[in-house]
Amino acid sequence: MKVGIIGSTGYAGQQLTALLINHKEVEIDFMMSNSQVGTDFSDIYGRFAPFLKGKRENVLIGSDEMLERIKSCQAVFLALPHGQSENYIRKFKDEMKLDDLVVIDLGSDFRYKNQELKPVYGLTEINRENIAKSNLIANPGCYPTAAALAIIPLLKEEGMIMDGFPIVIDAKSGMSGAGKNLNTGSLFCEVFGNSYPYKIGVHQHTDEIENSLNEFSLFEKNDNVVQFTPNIIPVNRGIIENIYIKPGKEVSEEALVDLYEAFYKDEVFVEVLRDNLPNIAKVANTNNCQIAVKYDQRTGMIVVVSAIDNLIKGAAGQAVQNFNVRFGFDEMTGLMYSPAHL
Amino acid sequence: MKVGIIGSTGYAGQQLTALLINHKEVEIDFMMSNSQVGTDFSDIYGRFAPFLKGKRENVLIGSDEMLERIKSCQAVFLALPHGQSENYIRKFKDEMKLDDLVVIDLGSDFRYKNQELKPVYGLTEINRENIAKSNLIANPGCYPTAAALAIIPLLKEEGMIMDGFPIVIDAKSGMSGAGKNLNTGSLFCEVFGNSYPYKIGVHQHTDEIENSLNEFSLFEKNDNVVQFTPNIIPVNRGIIENIYIKPGKEVSEEALVDLYEAFYKDEVFVEVLRDNLPNIAKVANTNNCQIAVKYDQRTGMIVVVSAIDNLIKGAAGQAVQNFNVRFGFDEMTGLMYSPAHL
Amino acid sequence: MKVGIIGSTGYAGQQLTALLINHKEVEIDFMMSNSQVGTDFSDIYGRFAPFLKGKRENVLIGSDEMLERIKSCQAVFLALPHGQSENYIRKFKDEMKLDDLVVIDLGSDFRYKNQELKPVYGLTEINRENIAKSNLIANPGCYPTAAALAIIPLLKEEGMIMDGFPIVIDAKSGMSGAGKNLNTGSLFCEVFGNSYPYKIGVHQHTDEIENSLNEFSLFEKNDNVVQFTPNIIPVNRGIIENIYIKPGKEVSEEALVDLYEAFYKDEVFVEVLRDNLPNIAKVANTNNCQIAVKYDQRTGMIVVVSAIDNLIKGAAGQAVQNFNVRFGFDEMTGLMYSPAHL
Amino acid sequence: MKVGIIGSTGYAGQQLTALLINHKEVEIDFMMSNSQVGTDFSDIYGRFAPFLKGKRENVLIGSDEMLERIKSCQAVFLALPHGQSENYIRKFKDEMKLDDLVVIDLGSDFRYKNQELKPVYGLTEINRENIAKSNLIANPGCYPTAAALAIIPLLKEEGMIMDGFPIVIDAKSGMSGAGKNLNTGSLFCEVFGNSYPYKIGVHQHTDEIENSLNEFSLFEKNDNVVQFTPNIIPVNRGIIENIYIKPGKEVSEEALVDLYEAFYKDEVFVEVLRDNLPNIAKVANTNNCQIAVKYDQRTGMIVVVSAIDNLIKGAAGQAVQNFNVRFGFDEMTGLMYSPAHL
Repeated sequence: MKVGIIGSTGYAGQQLTALLINHKEVEIDFMMSNSQVGTDFSDIYGRFAPFLKGKRENVLIGSDEMLERIKSCQAVFLALPHGQSENYIRKFKDEMKLDDLVVIDLGSDFRYKNQELKPVYGLTEINRENIAKSNLIANPGCYPTAAALAIIPLLKEEGMIMDGFPIVIDAKSGMSGAGKNLNTGSLFCEVFGNSYPYKIGVHQHTDEIENSLNEFSLFEKNDNVVQFTPNIIPVNRGIIENIYIKPGKEVSEEALVDLYEAFYKDEVFVEVLRDNLPNIAKVANTNNCQIAVKYDQRTGMIVVVSAIDNLIKGAAGQAVQNFNVRFGFDEMTGLMYSPAHL
Repeated sequence: MKVGIIGSTGYAGQQLTALLINHKEVEIDFMMSNSQVGTDFSDIYGRFAPFLKGKRENVLIGSDEMLERIKSCQAVFLALPHGQSENYIRKFKDEMKLDDLVVIDLGSDFRYKNQELKPVYGLTEINRENIAKSNLIANPGCYPTAAALAIIPLLKEEGMIMDGFPIVIDAKSGMSGAGKNLNTGSLFCEVFGNSYPYKIGVHQHTDEIENSLNEFSLFEKNDNVVQFTPNIIPVNRGIIENIYIKPGKEVSEEALVDLYEAFYKDEVFVEVLRDNLPNIAKVANTNNCQIAVKYDQRTGMIVVVSAIDNLIKGAAGQAVQNFNVRFGFDEMTGLMYSPAHL
Repeated sequence: MKVGIIGSTGYAGQQLTALLINHKEVEIDFMMSNSQVGTDFSDIYGRFAPFLKGKRENVLIGSDEMLERIKSCQAVFLALPHGQSENYIRKFKDEMKLDDLVVIDLGSDFRYKNQELKPVYGLTEINRENIAKSNLIANPGCYPTAAALAIIPLLKEEGMIMDGFPIVIDAKSGMSGAGKNLNTGSLFCEVFGNSYPYKIGVHQHTDEIENSLNEFSLFEKNDNVVQFTPNIIPVNRGIIENIYIKPGKEVSEEALVDLYEAFYKDEVFVEVLRDNLPNIAKVANTNNCQIAVKYDQRTGMIVVVSAIDNLIKGAAGQAVQNFNVRFGFDEMTGLMYSPAHL
Repeated sequence: MKVGIIGSTGYAGQQLTALLINHKEVEIDFMMSNSQVGTDFSDIYGRFAPFLKGKRENVLIGSDEMLERIKSCQAVFLALPHGQSENYIRKFKDEMKLDDLVVIDLGSDFRYKNQELKPVYGLTEINRENIAKSNLIANPGCYPTAAALAIIPLLKEEGMIMDGFPIVIDAKSGMSGAGKNLNTGSLFCEVFGNSYPYKIGVHQHTDEIENSLNEFSLFEKNDNVVQFTPNIIPVNRGIIENIYIKPGKEVSEEALVDLYEAFYKDEVFVEVLRDNLPNIAKVANTNNCQIAVKYDQRTGMIVVVSAIDNLIKGAAGQAVQNFNVRFGFDEMTGLMYSPAHL
């Protein structure tokens, strides 16, 4: 099956490329990068040379050639800076009438926005049925993926989250989440030995998290309020979030763990830990999400810990997972290589 | 003034040694390490060679010799693993009757424990008057220092913290906080690229934080409840904490910042940031605490961010600061060198 | 095909396990670890849970059970600390007479030692024919792999290395090369921000490098002398070596690059770079070796740069490659997944 | 004494500022940065706030104001990108006739260049007498400082370096050496977990090293040839160099160490190690240079290891040391604070 990649040279894009190379059902037809037309992808990312050097698709194309090539593709992935995919997708759908083209957008342009194009929110484990039928999949953001997978099980039972208590999410992310843009704050010397919160209460993912919680709540109540703080930590990849929730009724840690285990019992990419806590090293380079749920009897608070790889489950991996769901492939296709501990 | 150091070879101990070498009023009389008697301190920590090589105090002594030498010291610092200072201090005070010896304990043995020996809690900015009169100063823990300095201003005004809402503290610490013990989890390869929470709700500093908040509250109410999560981040030194508080009355960000600025207006080591947020790089290698306070109107939550160097303001630096207070030296003595940004 | 792993819990061992899980021709029959009998491997290395949890081979066995199980295996990999594999292998070969068992030893016990057991040196690209016929393969060390692949092409042409000029090898390695042993020097805080040479001129790999150069030289002269300096750099995996050689005759950079390209033209795992230099990021998580050769006309010196992943091409990956050669599988089997840049 | 800083906002410049704040004989009169006129220096580098906030000199000035202010300064430091200091210095000397102004240039513009202005090479330990009398001091580069201090002792005895054998210098540097420029290669994600050589044989410091060796050789022979390879390692600061030398006569390690110890016996900032090797952690944040010399009897090669902090002894610290020499202050003034191990 021929697929195209628009925006392959960013950190999420190159991760997507790495996964699609491993995907036995996929033939990468083109990689587009307007800023580097004609460049070999494997010259930018040397690790890809053994897989791509000398192949036609290794040469980055521009949007003109893309508009030709896409006609023979069945799916296209967009891994562009936020705000840049809307125009392409409108062109494919409104102008070129590529109704059968399956579009998977890793950006935020169609997450609870531009709803007239009928995007579905690509949180695979939660929204699988709709994903399977959609030709426009808005792949979730990295922070929202870890948060939603950690909170939604509690929204399936009434009263688990007390009204009036915001859900506090304290999230730590590796620097690849900031992309390859040239900012002084992204220089090695500025991040090495450092860590800090940013955009407290105003990060764009706050809305996305609240929207996803409201969409997938089983109850009428649609007013989940989230206090979200993203933090930078000096690693290249990985997200770990501590989530603090005041339950609206009596709970026990045992019952909570049971609830999570039951909720995710058929999911290969979500692991509920019973005896220990997630960490980034356990999920980095995988499409897995690890979740632990603790109940602090003394304070009456639930603490959920959730870890993913921001570039895989938080971006490219979930995109491939959604692609698999949409086309009826085994959901694990291309995602089940076994990475080492380090 | 002659001082001794018991436990100089741990990470906090060597930091203390570095500071005391710079302290113009201090003569280090001895460094004790029972496990490395006879070893040159500068052989363990090569950076100290230009300052100590060839000097008598460079040779680590054992407890027998210490018990002799301490008689001629005016102050002693203990930087021992938790639980190991009580016996020494009881010996000095109960058995040897060294009533005039000023003891500054960097361990936890006398923090809200063993109160019959009348220790005072060494949170300098908050408890200065008592520290100035005490011969047994229980130096605060690293996490509690950053937390208490960030929360106590709110406890000076009635109703600033709503009853029934635990104060959520999500704290990130560099690995030096774990000490020099040989655990697999402390190996470079296990921490590199990793981050994780630990001891959720059960870390020993939870009690210490609650006790300090209750001790220094202006109000009768002594039931501050803290939900504390420590996290490891892959840096060597530094702590940064995000603290989530539901106010019990109407507040504004502007008024909150004013309150903090007023509270700390005479403090040289606490900086209230108005336009940006603390980060570890801004406080590492200093005795400073940086605090920012934000109010999220949408959620009605206060978020306080607090950053310190865990080995300095969170341990050795505050110990020296307390020493200065106790002996009437300028509080900045030995603590005001200017470190570079990197 | 059933294979066993002896010593799976070290850093090389877990990397080997990760690779063998991906290997379509392999069934891991057992993993042995005398110090952790009965423990789940996936409890030590959480990333393996989706692949191993609940499976019989996930439970680490001891040597007694191993001696039973090995009888039904066709191959066994040993990833033990140096000096510990000899006894096992003598038992298999001398005592148990498991003549058909293919033994691949990742340790140093049979590298140019214990030659009466007829081990072959498992430098795949150079010694492929002998490896294909041997039942005892001594897998090369990490530093020697990068060095030998970088130097041997020069030994195929007479006079390329001047007599009397030692070959200077300055090699940098990530910390996983030091294994999981508990040493103060391996603690995160001791390696973070640090770098240093060690064992100058006396590292055990010096001999191995010289022996391999002598074994695979085309000429009678067997007196290659190597000045070898290993250095620690603060990364988890990867080796990069700068090699300084005085040529014994006139050369040009162009001719040298041609020579290397010709030498490795059929090799999928060795890439000769023409326009840029290797770095660790380009080979980490792969079985590739990248080599660049420069000639400095001003000084008359050749500088060869060689980079590998110490745990893969320098240990577990080359072991799997040798396994493939020995059993006639495509040499790339299990080694050709595409890792992302980060 | 009033001094000015031109180019204080780069990594070397802010290090210089940190040191000069600690210098008891210095009053910083101005800091100039054409690109950030009017900005508070302490807003760029938050760690400086306790020392500079609210002070006049904290506000960065442009070149017009600088040209006024410099008239009342006795010394000026230039920490500009290479090539940018020549014009300023010509203006001071040729146009403004500020003959008495002591200029210390941290850039390369006057290192063995522009000799008509009579610059002296500011390698303090080696060239102290000339520095004391000069009003234009060309502060050495970071790599050359570590190299020259390590090699020059051998140039004081005839025949210690064999003709025809280039001196091989393999040097590793932290990223601050690359400055604060915005390049993709300097991004955190590109350096994390990575290491690589660059500019093999063509780095601009090659010439500087050779020139300094020739200048300070005791012998007529002025043809020291250096094969220099710089490497990036993922730390923020520090340089460590392994230097390989073929001696021209018989030597012993003991005699070599004696030679180095004798050579540096009166130097407070150079430490010759006898029983162990330098590492970056032992010199980072100090003005020290650590040197060890080994002799490999087997190969007949001398290996010298040299470590410095690239921003201090390799830049700002040596500049202050030269300033002290020039004005007759104790050479240690402002440079002898004791930093901790981490």
